[in-house]
Amino acid sequence: MSERLAVYAEGLFADDHAKAAHGLIRYGDRETVAVIDSTQAGRRADEVVPFVGQPVPVVASVREAAQLGATRLAIGVAPAGGKLPEAWRRALLEGLELGLHLEAGLHDELHADDEIAASAAARGLDLRDLRTAPADLSTPTGEGARLPVRIVHTVGSDCAIGKMTASLELVQGARAAGESGAVFVPTGQIGISIAGWGIAVDHVISDYVAGAAERLVLDGAARGDLLVVEGQGSIQHPAYSGVTLGLLHGCTPHVLVLCHRAGETVLRDWTDVPIGPLDELCDLYERITRPIRPARVAAVAVNTSACADDDEARAAIEDVERQSGRPADDPVRFGPQRLWAAIGSALPVPGAA
Amino acid sequence: MSERLAVYAEGLFADDHAKAAHGLIRYGDRETVAVIDSTQAGRRADEVVPFVGQPVPVVASVREAAQLGATRLAIGVAPAGGKLPEAWRRALLEGLELGLHLEAGLHDELHADDEIAASAAARGLDLRDLRTAPADLSTPTGEGARLPVRIVHTVGSDCAIGKMTASLELVQGARAAGESGAVFVPTGQIGISIAGWGIAVDHVISDYVAGAAERLVLDGAARGDLLVVEGQGSIQHPAYSGVTLGLLHGCTPHVLVLCHRAGETVLRDWTDVPIGPLDELCDLYERITRPIRPARVAAVAVNTSACADDDEARAAIEDVERQSGRPADDPVRFGPQRLWAAIGSALPVPGAA
Repeated sequence: MSERLAVYAEGLFADDHAKAAHGLIRYGDRETVAVIDSTQAGRRADEVVPFVGQPVPVVASVREAAQLGATRLAIGVAPAGGKLPEAWRRALLEGLELGLHLEAGLHDELHADDEIAASAAARGLDLRDLRTAPADLSTPTGEGARLPVRIVHTVGSDCAIGKMTASLELVQGARAAGESGAVFVPTGQIGISIAGWGIAVDHVISDYVAGAAERLVLDGAARGDLLVVEGQGSIQHPAYSGVTLGLLHGCTPHVLVLCHRAGETVLRDWTDVPIGPLDELCDLYERITRPIRPARVAAVAVNTSACADDDEARAAIEDVERQSGRPADDPVRFGPQRLWAAIGSALPVPGAA
Repeated sequence: MSERLAVYAEGLFADDHAKAAHGLIRYGDRETVAVIDSTQAGRRADEVVPFVGQPVPVVASVREAAQLGATRLAIGVAPAGGKLPEAWRRALLEGLELGLHLEAGLHDELHADDEIAASAAARGLDLRDLRTAPADLSTPTGEGARLPVRIVHTVGSDCAIGKMTASLELVQGARAAGESGAVFVPTGQIGISIAGWGIAVDHVISDYVAGAAERLVLDGAARGDLLVVEGQGSIQHPAYSGVTLGLLHGCTPHVLVLCHRAGETVLRDWTDVPIGPLDELCDLYERITRPIRPARVAAVAVNTSACADDDEARAAIEDVERQSGRPADDPVRFGPQRLWAAIGSALPVPGAA
């Protein structure tokens, strides 16, 4: 894509709330030419947040970002409740005045703001509301499973343990290894903000979860031939298992990758719900996937971010390998090569899927 | 409840599209004093449809139904697409003029019809839109599982195989056996029309499926102490498994009853998806329920409506018993006693749940 992004993160770029901004820079397909945060202006993005890995200039205003060649202004922070604060609104309106297209994944839609909509229409500029699900979703047709693409799906032992990050690292690793058709398929708000497309499957009507997942496979197949579909929740989670299973069945994966946080034995928010043993959890995912299309849990992506150092992380990963009976690694800390070696041998031959 | 219903089924009472009307009469907690269908007027409901089992008069007009003592006019037929035809609208307006409250589970809400809403408001009459989910749904809190009620949940081997009917028969049987606190908990449109309350869990946002199921348990516990929660779909269904699992985890059952259509080995609408072996399907339901609250599949309700006679039905039921390793019976054809004998021994002691 030829879009050049200005990522808006005023006052928050150093914060966890700017996770979408960080992901956009580290993983995005589109070039980010400026970060807007007046409290960090003059520094480089990777000085403020080393994780982003790109020396993008941080500037104080939308105007400066436009001068650096931005073509679209993207909101890179998630406000509490998804509502658009007035200061951000002013920044978006200024972006339109400067000729920038807009993009946001807010609950308050850009299209629903009369002033923003009128300004964009008058200037012929595009408003991209990432949170809006397609209006024509329905139940799946079976078409997704017949496409000649290979589909990897990251499933979880709990919520919020790094399924999105593992998926993004897997795609980066695949591309680095020559799989130019590797595509991250976003299924949640932040992933959508990073990729600039996708459907938040937990916001669609429950009857259409699997249909939304199939739609994402169809859309992903237009972008590449090796899809890594971001998982949601866990099949054992009292609150989110319905979304997890609808997504799992709807995206018809060839291979599953279990994502797990090192050392976790019960759900973080439901401590009376046990996670393991991990080999049984892998078996359950495989058993429930089988009637739709058989898929092995070929590897486990381990989140070792809480480990003090690489030695502790290595030990935690080896423990997961023993418990799960699968190859495991932390793709963020040690790269996705070991995971891909296991995934690749379980995937169908390209084009023959 | 002291409500007396007039059930509107104009031109369709003899038809399968009036399934809600039939269920209202056969299973409803409220007395039905008249069915409105001018094409069958003068007959008794159980002459037109023996299944309903009640000699309710069929009349030609809303006015006659009002004269028979009705207090509420309920739509008992499902129009294509959930839209309200103009003739039905006229009947509803006539009902309001005659002092009747209204009830409907249509996609077109009664409250959203300006003329109906104004007429009801002017007369102080109530409009009950059964399809409208509570506005304050969220994820579950765990409160449902702590209530002193016993919870039975009917799960399925496929869609549309009689889970609602089996649930209703189980409740009738329990009441007949002295369980006066047995309550049918409706989770779909027709069940809601029959019971006059409930949530269509497949129409809520997918994130809230389990929360909606928990809400139904809380609402059901206000009505009785033995809940039979109507299941939806199947855990192996490519389109609906997400709804199935969210409902299963959210309603925190003590006992499961598998519902199965005699002789079916693959899904009716997805013939490449195998159903059985039935013992493995029961094991899968138990395995995936266990982390939330362990529940046995104590019995199998077999739909033998396609069997030519009772002998053929008996043979089909015995076959299901062999395949599933569980007691089985058809509660519609042979009554729910055999199923309850198996369910009851798996339930906790009343009040100690």
